[in-house]
Amino acid sequence: MTSEAGYNVAILGATGAVGTRILAQLEQSTIPVKSLKLLASVRSAGQTRQFKGQDIVVEEATPDSFDGIDLVLASAGGSLAGSLLPEAVKRGAVAVDNSSRWRMDPKVPLVVPEVNPEALADHQGIIANPNCSTIQMVVALEPLRQAYGLNQVIVSTYQAASGAGQRAWDELLHQAQQHLDGEEETADILPTKGDKKHYPLAFNLLPQIDVFQEDGYTFEEQKMMQETKKILFGDPHSSEVKVTATAVRVPVPIGHGESVYVSVDDETATREDVQRVLASAPGVVLEDNPDEQLYPQPIKAEGKRETFVGRVRADIENPGSFNMWVVSDNLLKGAAWNTVQIAEELVKRDLIHSQV
Amino acid sequence: MTSEAGYNVAILGATGAVGTRILAQLEQSTIPVKSLKLLASVRSAGQTRQFKGQDIVVEEATPDSFDGIDLVLASAGGSLAGSLLPEAVKRGAVAVDNSSRWRMDPKVPLVVPEVNPEALADHQGIIANPNCSTIQMVVALEPLRQAYGLNQVIVSTYQAASGAGQRAWDELLHQAQQHLDGEEETADILPTKGDKKHYPLAFNLLPQIDVFQEDGYTFEEQKMMQETKKILFGDPHSSEVKVTATAVRVPVPIGHGESVYVSVDDETATREDVQRVLASAPGVVLEDNPDEQLYPQPIKAEGKRETFVGRVRADIENPGSFNMWVVSDNLLKGAAWNTVQIAEELVKRDLIHSQV
Repeated sequence: MTSEAGYNVAILGATGAVGTRILAQLEQSTIPVKSLKLLASVRSAGQTRQFKGQDIVVEEATPDSFDGIDLVLASAGGSLAGSLLPEAVKRGAVAVDNSSRWRMDPKVPLVVPEVNPEALADHQGIIANPNCSTIQMVVALEPLRQAYGLNQVIVSTYQAASGAGQRAWDELLHQAQQHLDGEEETADILPTKGDKKHYPLAFNLLPQIDVFQEDGYTFEEQKMMQETKKILFGDPHSSEVKVTATAVRVPVPIGHGESVYVSVDDETATREDVQRVLASAPGVVLEDNPDEQLYPQPIKAEGKRETFVGRVRADIENPGSFNMWVVSDNLLKGAAWNTVQIAEELVKRDLIHSQV
Repeated sequence: MTSEAGYNVAILGATGAVGTRILAQLEQSTIPVKSLKLLASVRSAGQTRQFKGQDIVVEEATPDSFDGIDLVLASAGGSLAGSLLPEAVKRGAVAVDNSSRWRMDPKVPLVVPEVNPEALADHQGIIANPNCSTIQMVVALEPLRQAYGLNQVIVSTYQAASGAGQRAWDELLHQAQQHLDGEEETADILPTKGDKKHYPLAFNLLPQIDVFQEDGYTFEEQKMMQETKKILFGDPHSSEVKVTATAVRVPVPIGHGESVYVSVDDETATREDVQRVLASAPGVVLEDNPDEQLYPQPIKAEGKRETFVGRVRADIENPGSFNMWVVSDNLLKGAAWNTVQIAEELVKRDLIHSQV
């Protein structure tokens, strides 16, 4: 099949915060869509969504849903990704998955198109979309790696509620209204559905994203450390760069902020050099003008595909080390757009082999 | 005068977010108060406040207000601190000041009582209270310095709106209601009164606190770097420890969070060692139990005097380096309580020389 004829596409998890955005990003993309199937859990089946002016009824996802499908764009959680995507691949589809289920599999490319599109060539059916906070960070780090070599990365995140899904986002807004009304805030989801206790996020900070590991790091922090290495150096345990992370949930609906401290190998690099490199980097918008109080903010990044970088400063006491502030829409570049962007790259490289 | 007889005390800036808390902290303190004068700008003069059951009328602050005063607790901004506190000292008073006006003066001790109370001995009338975000950080760093020696500190702050005053705090809550009502958020104060543009903080992040310096750092970030060195090593430009900071305002009313990366000299120090040292450190409460999802949160720290530390983790790739998460009530330990605590220490060391 030539790309002119188009692909049979399925969106798995089509009704969630990310799924609805995958649909919208696909509508604006260069991918020729011959047919589109919207799949979700039985709870959402029967709902209707529009794609290019046509109503599409959401169907319950089963293995047979993928018969005849060329491309699956999935955002349905790790459990469904684990059971259904191999079924899709068995039926000849290529799947791009948003969950963490496949990211550390050595046979699965973990891809940010601005950074490591060449990893797609080795795919065996499943391609993993990285964690939202990792994606925007590596978009900002890769140009510095190319220009100066990377030595160390220390990141503190300021992550939006929508990263934990639509219900966490709704919970934040509900808690905020409770607080403003002088009521006690109720919490049923955050910091993470998978843990025992729940705390209010509105007007608060929660230094827990996902569950805790043995060493005291959360799974989110471990993901940032390992995924960054896999994307930049092909190995989640690469010693080519040191990475450590602290992940904090903040009372923001959309848009992750990151305070990134980066040490490059070339100690002669200046602040102006780093700004210049970032200004011309793919997917990056440099917003860095203190005189104009120009710097990235979540409310300005919402709805945009780019990663915004500003507040670039040299660590005066450590040559070759810099602070910077990185913001992106966690539901777009952190999820839906990066997924569709991977699919565009697969099309461009002719790596989707249609069965029809 | 013996301390039994008590001191004539004045609170300068008595009606602000910090001033009202200085009053409350003084009421609970061990300082024997013989008389109390409440001073403010002409705008607030005539208001009434209670102290130990007695009504006190707020007076306009003038140089002569300090006649007969032994101790001034000031939170009135840098300009008034610059003009009025020397007048108070000239009249024989000792002044503890919350503004940044005197902090870098080599003749002025910059004091956190858990860390460097001995610096009080050299005072020449004015003692400076450090910046709120600096105070809670050095409370957590000093025990590590004593135990292992400090090499490097990299901090990213998550600072509450009340750090910019009562009006910024009110603005945050007003913006939040606007957002929830679907209205456009209005901004007149934040990120900082002293700059041209204003942006909404509610449901957003503002990586600017105070005005920008030549090197791209904000004044807040510079304060954290220089004050930390002055408090820990007696010199704002000390090379005994490297410090770099990124300061971000978050939509939280009270309670600053800090993601602190610290490298100690003793590379054999373990995570458990650091936790043990922090658990027994003065002014610190270790809240660090991942199994119980116990970690510091602003809403739990509000109204408390202590600095809460948790999420202690070893940087697996850098021996002797640790991540930790530090939270404290910025209006209490970050301001009012630290001020009254300094005054208690002055009393204990008999460093207030009453004129009566």
